[in-house]
Amino acid sequence: MKDKNPKWVCDLAKFIDRPHRDVRERVRQILAKKEFQNPPRDSTAEYRDSVWKLLKIIADEGIGKIGIPEEFGGEGDKNAFLAAFETLAEGDLSVLIKFGVQIGLFGGTIQNLGTEFHHKQYLRDAMEAKLPGCFAMTEGDHGSNVAGLETTITYRKENDTFVIHTLHENAGKDYIGNAAVHAKMASVFGQLIVEGKSHGVHCILVPVRDGAGNPLKGIRIEDDGDKMGLNGVDNGRLWFDNVAVPRENLLNRFGGVNETGEYVSDIESESRRFFTMLGTLVGGRVSIGSSSLTAAKRALKIAIDHALERRQFGEEGKQEILLMDYKLHQTRLIPLLAKTFAIHFALRELSERYGKAETETEERIFERDAAALKAYATWHANKTIQTCREACGGAGYISSMGFSDLKGDIDIFTTFEGDNTVLQLLVAKESLKDFARQLKSAGPVTAAIEITMSQLKRYQLSLALLFSRGDISTMTLMDLLKMREQQVLIDTAKRIRHRIKKDGFTPTKAFNEEGPQLVVFAAAHTDMIVYGRFREALSRVNNQKVRSKLESLLELYGLSVIEENKAWFLSSGLLPVWLCNSLPAMIGEKVGKVRRDVDKLVTALNPGSLR
Amino acid sequence: MKDKNPKWVCDLAKFIDRPHRDVRERVRQILAKKEFQNPPRDSTAEYRDSVWKLLKIIADEGIGKIGIPEEFGGEGDKNAFLAAFETLAEGDLSVLIKFGVQIGLFGGTIQNLGTEFHHKQYLRDAMEAKLPGCFAMTEGDHGSNVAGLETTITYRKENDTFVIHTLHENAGKDYIGNAAVHAKMASVFGQLIVEGKSHGVHCILVPVRDGAGNPLKGIRIEDDGDKMGLNGVDNGRLWFDNVAVPRENLLNRFGGVNETGEYVSDIESESRRFFTMLGTLVGGRVSIGSSSLTAAKRALKIAIDHALERRQFGEEGKQEILLMDYKLHQTRLIPLLAKTFAIHFALRELSERYGKAETETEERIFERDAAALKAYATWHANKTIQTCREACGGAGYISSMGFSDLKGDIDIFTTFEGDNTVLQLLVAKESLKDFARQLKSAGPVTAAIEITMSQLKRYQLSLALLFSRGDISTMTLMDLLKMREQQVLIDTAKRIRHRIKKDGFTPTKAFNEEGPQLVVFAAAHTDMIVYGRFREALSRVNNQKVRSKLESLLELYGLSVIEENKAWFLSSGLLPVWLCNSLPAMIGEKVGKVRRDVDKLVTALNPGSLR
Repeated sequence: MKDKNPKWVCDLAKFIDRPHRDVRERVRQILAKKEFQNPPRDSTAEYRDSVWKLLKIIADEGIGKIGIPEEFGGEGDKNAFLAAFETLAEGDLSVLIKFGVQIGLFGGTIQNLGTEFHHKQYLRDAMEAKLPGCFAMTEGDHGSNVAGLETTITYRKENDTFVIHTLHENAGKDYIGNAAVHAKMASVFGQLIVEGKSHGVHCILVPVRDGAGNPLKGIRIEDDGDKMGLNGVDNGRLWFDNVAVPRENLLNRFGGVNETGEYVSDIESESRRFFTMLGTLVGGRVSIGSSSLTAAKRALKIAIDHALERRQFGEEGKQEILLMDYKLHQTRLIPLLAKTFAIHFALRELSERYGKAETETEERIFERDAAALKAYATWHANKTIQTCREACGGAGYISSMGFSDLKGDIDIFTTFEGDNTVLQLLVAKESLKDFARQLKSAGPVTAAIEITMSQLKRYQLSLALLFSRGDISTMTLMDLLKMREQQVLIDTAKRIRHRIKKDGFTPTKAFNEEGPQLVVFAAAHTDMIVYGRFREALSRVNNQKVRSKLESLLELYGLSVIEENKAWFLSSGLLPVWLCNSLPAMIGEKVGKVRRDVDKLVTALNPGSLR
Repeated sequence: MKDKNPKWVCDLAKFIDRPHRDVRERVRQILAKKEFQNPPRDSTAEYRDSVWKLLKIIADEGIGKIGIPEEFGGEGDKNAFLAAFETLAEGDLSVLIKFGVQIGLFGGTIQNLGTEFHHKQYLRDAMEAKLPGCFAMTEGDHGSNVAGLETTITYRKENDTFVIHTLHENAGKDYIGNAAVHAKMASVFGQLIVEGKSHGVHCILVPVRDGAGNPLKGIRIEDDGDKMGLNGVDNGRLWFDNVAVPRENLLNRFGGVNETGEYVSDIESESRRFFTMLGTLVGGRVSIGSSSLTAAKRALKIAIDHALERRQFGEEGKQEILLMDYKLHQTRLIPLLAKTFAIHFALRELSERYGKAETETEERIFERDAAALKAYATWHANKTIQTCREACGGAGYISSMGFSDLKGDIDIFTTFEGDNTVLQLLVAKESLKDFARQLKSAGPVTAAIEITMSQLKRYQLSLALLFSRGDISTMTLMDLLKMREQQVLIDTAKRIRHRIKKDGFTPTKAFNEEGPQLVVFAAAHTDMIVYGRFREALSRVNNQKVRSKLESLLELYGLSVIEENKAWFLSSGLLPVWLCNSLPAMIGEKVGKVRRDVDKLVTALNPGSLR
């Protein structure tokens, strides 16, 4: 493959693989082993077994330990670990998620919520998959609302133990990966109660199976059975009937019980403690976003390869037309390709920023970005896989083409690690809080809003002028997306304010009522972020040819966002009618440009395919 | 269930079940049999076996014969047959498609393309599933382009036989349902060649397996293997190596070879003959549309029931909020519910019109409507199932909730029985032809376009006025959708004309270039049709309560279409900015109204759930 491609393609592929190209190559070498080619999966039991064995191979190669400190045999590089995870999505996605559950979630709680004792005792074994574990957070009745979990973790002073208990049938843990078959231990989230007082959600390590794999006393386990996808992962349910564990099992980095039986924590506010604790688990959200994008890249490769081979219909007496030469086919696939490039760079920047926040504000912004991009990327991946499947017609329906697994496996990415709509609401609320803070520092609320509005109005005039002269520079597009974000934010803030001040709603009710508007803002915000990150990445490209190819993709992505939101640009007066009417032609031109290199671009986007 | 619901719900359910309520109830009684509850499907082989047995039960109950004449044991009611098919989608969808393949496609070719000999010889056995058959049209290299099939059916005068031959590996029949295991006979489509002259695509009956189930001499069969869904149906590939069959096997209703070895046909034009032949198979397209909608209805029932049970988050110290009481959740599900009602009535009207065309024009309009609604309904079904799955969070991912099968099985509906995008192009091209005919009869082309435009402009002023006064009567909405359809048609015609006259493109190239615009028209056209049919259905409702509930749904559907296409309404000048800005609030109000009865409405939409 390599020599068939011009140099710029290899350069672009390397750029796509950056940073941590070495780690990605290490993972690809593992995925290329013979054990990973068509592992047995005739039955669910067999598939689960295969997946566990493959996970062990990956762990044996040290991939699980990349993110943990060297003193525990690791490499101390959390960003490289995210790169490894993202690359694992080039293989079977059940293996990816099994790895995510064992290493990212179970190991992650020990690493992020535990202290020295837990690290010494369990970290290495967890990351080497020698101690199979599960992450028992979600309950039948509580998923998105983690603060409302009903499992109790009650401290018993008399024998210095914690007792874990499931309050009722629907408070049982559910959908827990690794729980149905393999887990020996669980990191269980529940309400910590000390001397009758609740201190909010904490996490504790609870052994769940004995050496022979039988549930321990007081523990009931059920199998969730078949799922839409990811059937190599054994999801299950767990109930605890007054199960006692030693005090040391509580992962007490942010709060615990001392030797005299008192609750102690460095963080006084229960809510701040809760969000700090959850914040340490945000790496999972980043991983889900970027691994879903890996799946989208694979789908595009299949569909574009197919469209460059298959012909159908045409002029009488001539060879039939290549699918890829149909304008309609191009407009189905190529804007998705551009968007995939855009999200790629946004997620790459995010992955590299992980764990590097130095202030609480930076940390908050990181979490907001992670929420925004997780929702954006996973929905995009699902849409892309579906469009690619349909673009391959009946052939795409046959499992061997690859879409069956991609589609079934990636489906859940939109609702696990944070339901996408809940994440969008979070993005909007955080942005509104920021906005309120800015306004407070700037003076009285209404005046500040008016100033911002008039600033925007003035700016947009000159911008529309630039755009109308045919200057669709990437800066113009950036400004348009920024202004949209700003105006929608102001509009949203005004609406919420109106609901509270004029309609007399409680904040909860006001936010519920404006839910549809909040997701409109989240979309505008994320479009802007993604476009900006792609544009920044472009400035780091030295190879002129690579840069020019990426520029076409960037422009296409920007124009597509504006086209999709044309109604907003029209009604806000930001763009005139005649200009909006010419968007399809402008997009068509960019699509045509990308079409010429589409085979090479999709190859570079899948550097693994160049091996 | 029945007594818990107010009378209007039962009345609405009966209205939804009309016409052919008796047939639907017959099918439901079969689906309620114990054999249909969780049939064995641990392996693909077992599932295929289960599905075949269930098909036999359905056939034994006479369902397959509903559409054939009484002289062959049938009931002579093709419309009732479509109703039966639609209702079968309330059960396992592999059974539905197995039935569709055996009865609708294989049986359908005998019924629609065959003559008395074939009817007497095979019709009853096909429809009773005593003669297992498959429909071998699609080839590896030719799916959408049926006219380009490469299989040859060559007449050999010396022994009065036809020889069926596969020209090359990729000209083999592919994705053929029933082919991998069960079919004993195939209706094979290929180019008919008589005395060296090709007469275009014809269909011939070819025995493919012996009594013991082994492929006959000259026939090679392969299994397509696992698919994304519908794994109870055995899809496979067929190759023919100079297989000879008697002359009588040609299904010669529209063309065949007489006793003296000459080609004879009542239709002189090869292309007209081809389209007439394919036209008789349009019932399958109607069936696919309406059965996909049954699946959408099922998905909505699951998601709405879930949203009326599950609570998450809320005000401090109060009971958590019902998912259904989140505005965002409502705006995700309720417009889909409204659209499902709308499509329901559009498809019902279509099913009843099937087989009743008295002129060629009526037949052409029917085929265009079938194409438009098949694409519209199957995409809507896929989107609805996906949204409903996500609205159920993790629970929706567990197979037992029902979405796994719905999603995997319905996926292919967007590309089989006509690829949706190809169908959209067909709709647009047919409409453009009609338009050209109208213009021709009205006078010179350009003048006519201008007249139509100015008429529209005048009308739209008074319409915007009405709308702005808050008069969103269903008539106003109808007019808006009609004007959009008209203007987009005119615009599309102008573009094509420009491509041909100014750019000097061939018609093929012009249509390729404007492909994206053609699907924009197809969407506008179908929105209008669907809205119109729903509105007509409403006029037939006597019960005032039912009518008022349906009216809210109709208005919601109409407003949603306008909201989705706001950019067009703004840039065409048809609606002013302030009015478009108030659409979300108008939609919100309708959504709130539907919310109050949403449990009852979704129950009535699934009359089977009332049994």
